[in-house]
Amino acid sequence: MKINLHRLLVDIEKYAEFGKNECGGITRPSFSSADHQVREMFIKELEEMGLTVTIDGAANIWAKLKGNGKKNGSLVIGSHLDSVPNGGKYDGSLGVLMAKEIVKTIIENKVNLDHDLEIVSFTAEESNDFNLSTFGSRSFVGKLTADQLKESRDSTGALLNGELKKVGGGLNQFPAMKDMQAEKKAFIELHIEQGKRLESADISMAVIHSVVGTYRSFIKVIGEPNHSGTTMMVNRIDALTAAAEMILEVERYCREKGNVVGTVGKIAVTPNAANIIPGEVEFVLEIRAEKEETIELAVNSIQEVWAEIAKKRGVQLHKEVILDQKPVVLDQELAAILENTARQMNEPYLTLPSMAVHDAAHMASITRSVMVFVKSIAGKSHCPEEYSEPADIEKAGNLILHGIFNLDRALPETKDQLQVNNK
Amino acid sequence: MKINLHRLLVDIEKYAEFGKNECGGITRPSFSSADHQVREMFIKELEEMGLTVTIDGAANIWAKLKGNGKKNGSLVIGSHLDSVPNGGKYDGSLGVLMAKEIVKTIIENKVNLDHDLEIVSFTAEESNDFNLSTFGSRSFVGKLTADQLKESRDSTGALLNGELKKVGGGLNQFPAMKDMQAEKKAFIELHIEQGKRLESADISMAVIHSVVGTYRSFIKVIGEPNHSGTTMMVNRIDALTAAAEMILEVERYCREKGNVVGTVGKIAVTPNAANIIPGEVEFVLEIRAEKEETIELAVNSIQEVWAEIAKKRGVQLHKEVILDQKPVVLDQELAAILENTARQMNEPYLTLPSMAVHDAAHMASITRSVMVFVKSIAGKSHCPEEYSEPADIEKAGNLILHGIFNLDRALPETKDQLQVNNK
Repeated sequence: MKINLHRLLVDIEKYAEFGKNECGGITRPSFSSADHQVREMFIKELEEMGLTVTIDGAANIWAKLKGNGKKNGSLVIGSHLDSVPNGGKYDGSLGVLMAKEIVKTIIENKVNLDHDLEIVSFTAEESNDFNLSTFGSRSFVGKLTADQLKESRDSTGALLNGELKKVGGGLNQFPAMKDMQAEKKAFIELHIEQGKRLESADISMAVIHSVVGTYRSFIKVIGEPNHSGTTMMVNRIDALTAAAEMILEVERYCREKGNVVGTVGKIAVTPNAANIIPGEVEFVLEIRAEKEETIELAVNSIQEVWAEIAKKRGVQLHKEVILDQKPVVLDQELAAILENTARQMNEPYLTLPSMAVHDAAHMASITRSVMVFVKSIAGKSHCPEEYSEPADIEKAGNLILHGIFNLDRALPETKDQLQVNNK
Repeated sequence: MKINLHRLLVDIEKYAEFGKNECGGITRPSFSSADHQVREMFIKELEEMGLTVTIDGAANIWAKLKGNGKKNGSLVIGSHLDSVPNGGKYDGSLGVLMAKEIVKTIIENKVNLDHDLEIVSFTAEESNDFNLSTFGSRSFVGKLTADQLKESRDSTGALLNGELKKVGGGLNQFPAMKDMQAEKKAFIELHIEQGKRLESADISMAVIHSVVGTYRSFIKVIGEPNHSGTTMMVNRIDALTAAAEMILEVERYCREKGNVVGTVGKIAVTPNAANIIPGEVEFVLEIRAEKEETIELAVNSIQEVWAEIAKKRGVQLHKEVILDQKPVVLDQELAAILENTARQMNEPYLTLPSMAVHDAAHMASITRSVMVFVKSIAGKSHCPEEYSEPADIEKAGNLILHGIFNLDRALPETKDQLQVNNK
């Protein structure tokens, strides 16, 4: 049994019309009018498929295909339909539309599943004007509460609650989401890789075992602002050349280690004038790795070298940790089922950590969760050039289709018998 | 014969009251109300000394002590009374107040000079709201014309011409300045060093033979913006790490050479987000050196290394030269007279290039010009902590006092007989 690739590709193009902008990209943040339109069409299509549609408090869209009732609970597949400004057709949408395609294939082939099968489209996964990325999944699992969100407003002053109500959600329905958690027995999210690891290996897809942790610290380097002409080189305490050395150390360390990425993406220089030696530089260090101890080692090693640089150059360093998001281990049994499925299909795959946070990382706190990545071309992401090849998409879709069959068989009758990992 | 140090120090403190701010610094840009007040007091004092005061088109203040008429023209000493925001007591003011002190000493001692002796206070030497630093001297020597300036406005929209008129100048008087040039037979400017070279050598003062050239280029480094998590280290084209390496090369080269200073003081990163690898970095390179060929060699050598860095890292480089101010050689005969004077006084001195542009660099285009620097403490400048020690100030003042006597004797009768250097 195979998904209908042609139908899926037509669907991807159809959905890409919503929020299409003059640059050829898609601008479809949650709660925008393009989002309203795409939600309406999506729900209509789900109902036409005979599915039962539920909108939860966070305006996440759930659509259920009833199983034969032999086993309790539902297997969930999906991702998100919102996009970054001027984003691509695949990030998020591919996972949702593939879920729809898989359910269509199952219906057409009259497959009788022991579990219910659900499609989910999470609200506001991307960074957005409410500063609440992965909003839908975090709300669903209880990491964001109605109380925390009641004063949340976007930059125009609009209340989040008002925006939620327009699309069938609302903070008053947040308690009810808790009751929905129990029936979700597993979650599989398909997403584009957004990197080049699969392309480098010339492999179509990967089973994702974990989501990297992210550490960010705000660093201030204090030197001495001075006249750029009258201050001889030996008398300078230049905060920018010190910062430059520190930034290069981040790169050097991470290149050498290979199992960690480090970035300085944001920087500000004071006074920032051509004829004044920089007196102060502020920047943000970001470190991501699969294991907590790898992050810790990287931060410590880099800081040790930084301390030497500061001493040598006479600058002062101040540090403030602004993010310390621990790595998430996804469900290893679920991953093993998908890997076995790939082997049965004779399809090569990689096992990789996800270098970015996705809804699955949050769903993992309430149920068995795993991800499948499909190869990105040139690693492009969050831009109109984002692309994955049809042949790779097809393989990843069939992997999940057959993975669901295997999972449906493998899972015990009720959720109660399971020990949920990754709390 | 000696200047009256005590009187001078009292004068410095008195003038420092005008524009004194809550941080203990002086904020006295030209055309400010503090500047209006200080001009009024200065002119009144000059007149009380029996000098003939002239305000030229650029509102420069000239005050003449008549000589015995044996030789034509005047010897000029002075600097500027305006300050940067939150500046110190010495930058500019020291040169003007010392000129006043020297003339007072000459009057008190009834010295009969062959030349007229003039004090000058130039308008708007510092960077200012009209974006016209060394405005007064550049206007006086004809580098800035009335035509160029007629639409010049500050950030509030006020016309420069209107501001000039309030303090006795005006663009309509610019042609008359040209006629004033011929009588200026020599110009000596005393200024604080604003660096640490004298302090390091433990010498009170320096005779300045030249003013460094300044080269600035606007550099754009183009890499590839990408997700900081999903883009592995080997796949990155990080514009900031490339720029960091380039910035360190500027420092490395200039430290090694010793006869050139190089600075990156201004930088902008795009998109400047913690989770995006920098796609573009813009910065300004500044190089200063005493000789044109030293600047050229520095720029070429640095750019050669930059090209290698760009090639190695896959970034693109764009360059635009935004300033190419050639070095100015000051009057070597005038410098020799001052050096001889120092030796006669048994006072040690250094001969140094000036690393910053002063009014003397522009006066050099119409008459013999030279500078004397007095030691700065800790190189501090353009800040309330700016300081020079009384003993050093006294030595520099006496050097100029006796230098004037020697110059008065050495110069031939009329300016016509002289070949003016440094056109």
